[in-house]
Amino acid sequence: MENVESNLHHCKFEVPEIIFGRGLLSQIGSCARRLGGRKVFLVSDQGLFTAGWVDLAMRSLLEAGLSFVYYDQVTPNPRDTEIEDGAAEYIRQGADVIVGLGGGSAMDTAKGVAILVSNGGRIRDFEGSDKIIRPLPPLVLCPTTCGTGSDVSQFAVVNDTERRCKMTIMSRCIAPDISLTDPDTLSTLPDEYVCTTATDALSHALEAFFSVASTSLTDVHAIKAVRLLSKSLVKAVRERRPDDLENLSRASLHAGMAFSNSLLGIVHALAHPIGGFYDVNHGSVNAILLPEVLRYDIPVVAEKLPELAWGLGHLSKGETNGSAEMVQDTVEALLDASGAPRSLRSLGVVREDLPDLARKALKDVCIVTSPREADEKDLLRILEKAY
Amino acid sequence: MENVESNLHHCKFEVPEIIFGRGLLSQIGSCARRLGGRKVFLVSDQGLFTAGWVDLAMRSLLEAGLSFVYYDQVTPNPRDTEIEDGAAEYIRQGADVIVGLGGGSAMDTAKGVAILVSNGGRIRDFEGSDKIIRPLPPLVLCPTTCGTGSDVSQFAVVNDTERRCKMTIMSRCIAPDISLTDPDTLSTLPDEYVCTTATDALSHALEAFFSVASTSLTDVHAIKAVRLLSKSLVKAVRERRPDDLENLSRASLHAGMAFSNSLLGIVHALAHPIGGFYDVNHGSVNAILLPEVLRYDIPVVAEKLPELAWGLGHLSKGETNGSAEMVQDTVEALLDASGAPRSLRSLGVVREDLPDLARKALKDVCIVTSPREADEKDLLRILEKAY
Repeated sequence: MENVESNLHHCKFEVPEIIFGRGLLSQIGSCARRLGGRKVFLVSDQGLFTAGWVDLAMRSLLEAGLSFVYYDQVTPNPRDTEIEDGAAEYIRQGADVIVGLGGGSAMDTAKGVAILVSNGGRIRDFEGSDKIIRPLPPLVLCPTTCGTGSDVSQFAVVNDTERRCKMTIMSRCIAPDISLTDPDTLSTLPDEYVCTTATDALSHALEAFFSVASTSLTDVHAIKAVRLLSKSLVKAVRERRPDDLENLSRASLHAGMAFSNSLLGIVHALAHPIGGFYDVNHGSVNAILLPEVLRYDIPVVAEKLPELAWGLGHLSKGETNGSAEMVQDTVEALLDASGAPRSLRSLGVVREDLPDLARKALKDVCIVTSPREADEKDLLRILEKAY
Repeated sequence: MENVESNLHHCKFEVPEIIFGRGLLSQIGSCARRLGGRKVFLVSDQGLFTAGWVDLAMRSLLEAGLSFVYYDQVTPNPRDTEIEDGAAEYIRQGADVIVGLGGGSAMDTAKGVAILVSNGGRIRDFEGSDKIIRPLPPLVLCPTTCGTGSDVSQFAVVNDTERRCKMTIMSRCIAPDISLTDPDTLSTLPDEYVCTTATDALSHALEAFFSVASTSLTDVHAIKAVRLLSKSLVKAVRERRPDDLENLSRASLHAGMAFSNSLLGIVHALAHPIGGFYDVNHGSVNAILLPEVLRYDIPVVAEKLPELAWGLGHLSKGETNGSAEMVQDTVEALLDASGAPRSLRSLGVVREDLPDLARKALKDVCIVTSPREADEKDLLRILEKAY
């Protein structure tokens, strides 16, 4: 193991202002006002409206003396068209601050609207790194799932409905001004989403930890996320106790802080084309791919395994013997016990599409930070094993 | 142990943009320019000028097309008068961005100047929490010691020369825009300061970890700082290898991120009046007080000891038996081996002053987050043991 505990000697680390705690959704109004807003463009979805959280947010905005426009044209794997419609609505209504309340879909829609209202054009113009020129309106993001990390990250993932693929937009300026998490919102999240968003967080944590751009600043958050998930994932899915749900929420935040700064790897590089092509649940795809990608990566990250073993609840004496197998087994057991789906076939992926998906993954921005290089054949082999 | 891994359910976490890496001091110019500056007010000290770092910074500023005013009226335990003179100079010269390069003294002077040029008045008007009304000019801070944490923190500590005491200024808006650390600058730091600033970082990490305002977001950074210090403190002091020095630099950054958000405790509450009264080295005072305060705190923080034991390089099975003694012994051994001073007497503190120092510490803002309450008698007892 190198004496300096990081892969890279140079590191950058940037996170928004973070507010976290049960019952704190009621501060959404004061957060928006503090950023100078008067008319809020509130992005959320119908599930959260039904559950009462949108109502709570609206009351908080009104109590802070703000008016708002409500926009809920948000679907899972948010679409370019929904963002473009949202931006038109923002401009028509003269809004001046954006609040996103929901899972990755609502938050990425909020980010997309923020990009378009200040930069113009179509959302696909901003695909890739650092295409955003003009500063965005103030942005508050409030996650209500335990996986996306969009509330702290410099990413947005949007479905290009014409090309049937997911576009990744990456820019420092789409991290929000404030990330506000109220873990109480998990209480109304359907069981299925508790599992699939938390396994998304697990994937974020592990990919961030193994990323070639990981540093001591990101590793501490990745390992904390792993610890919290090891402790509470299965219990949260089965028993839904508030403390366990809060731990998942917290894990998602830690994992988001890690991957936003260290980026990801092959799991997400493959999950993006799959999600874009089939419109399937992102967390489920990750849960399926994670064990195979882990098996592929482990031989080149041996020196980081003892710390990960510690995060997974095992103590090790610092030697790497045995850690590889133990890490692999523990992650798989965790995914099994959480009830996550375990094959691409079960999601409706068609075997004949695998070569094309592997080809598309090679162009995804997430492939760049994979600890182990992979060509089209390697990726296809991973997909076949996960099929 | 509580299921939810934090002392407080509500947490806030805020850090500046962080850039860290050997050789990166040459980016100081592009950082200042990116913040919109044209004429930089560069605060540093004579030791760094002699060592050549100021020269390197100046060249970087010029290469970025910026002009600058150089201000080096900075002494250890920076004085109100130096800050007020600096602010007058900033205004006279028409500067528009501030860069602080140095230890806590240079950086806190830079913060103080930033406060005064935008808010007017005298620096003592801003003592305490949240007294700053108007936004500060852009601020880049570059630490060249391994202890202060001022480059990421929401604090500045200034010597009130009339009252002979240290004032703590606490406000979100005095965290800089950018924290830029180049660990290479440690290569010219005198041996004595490597030890005393690193033990300051150790004290930040331990006090942040035990603080009643600690959260999982701060704990991960506190523990990482402890790990890095356990590994490299003694070696860095004795052998001064670049990798070990870099680990100290990194430890200081992690500890700063922790305590800026969780605040501190009795060590710093006592160190501030001592430093203000005797003008002695801050890190030395902390190193002396830390073992006694640790002994005082440990009985009330038992549930956090296993994680700390792990950070200190010991593995434990999660039970608290034995951890208390082991933590205490390990910290003391680390301080001994690093050559830190071990008695207040050796610093020239006069025994008759102890009651007055204990009284002053009771009013210090750091006492608020101590895990164990303390009255004047408790504080006096700690001072006497450390005498």
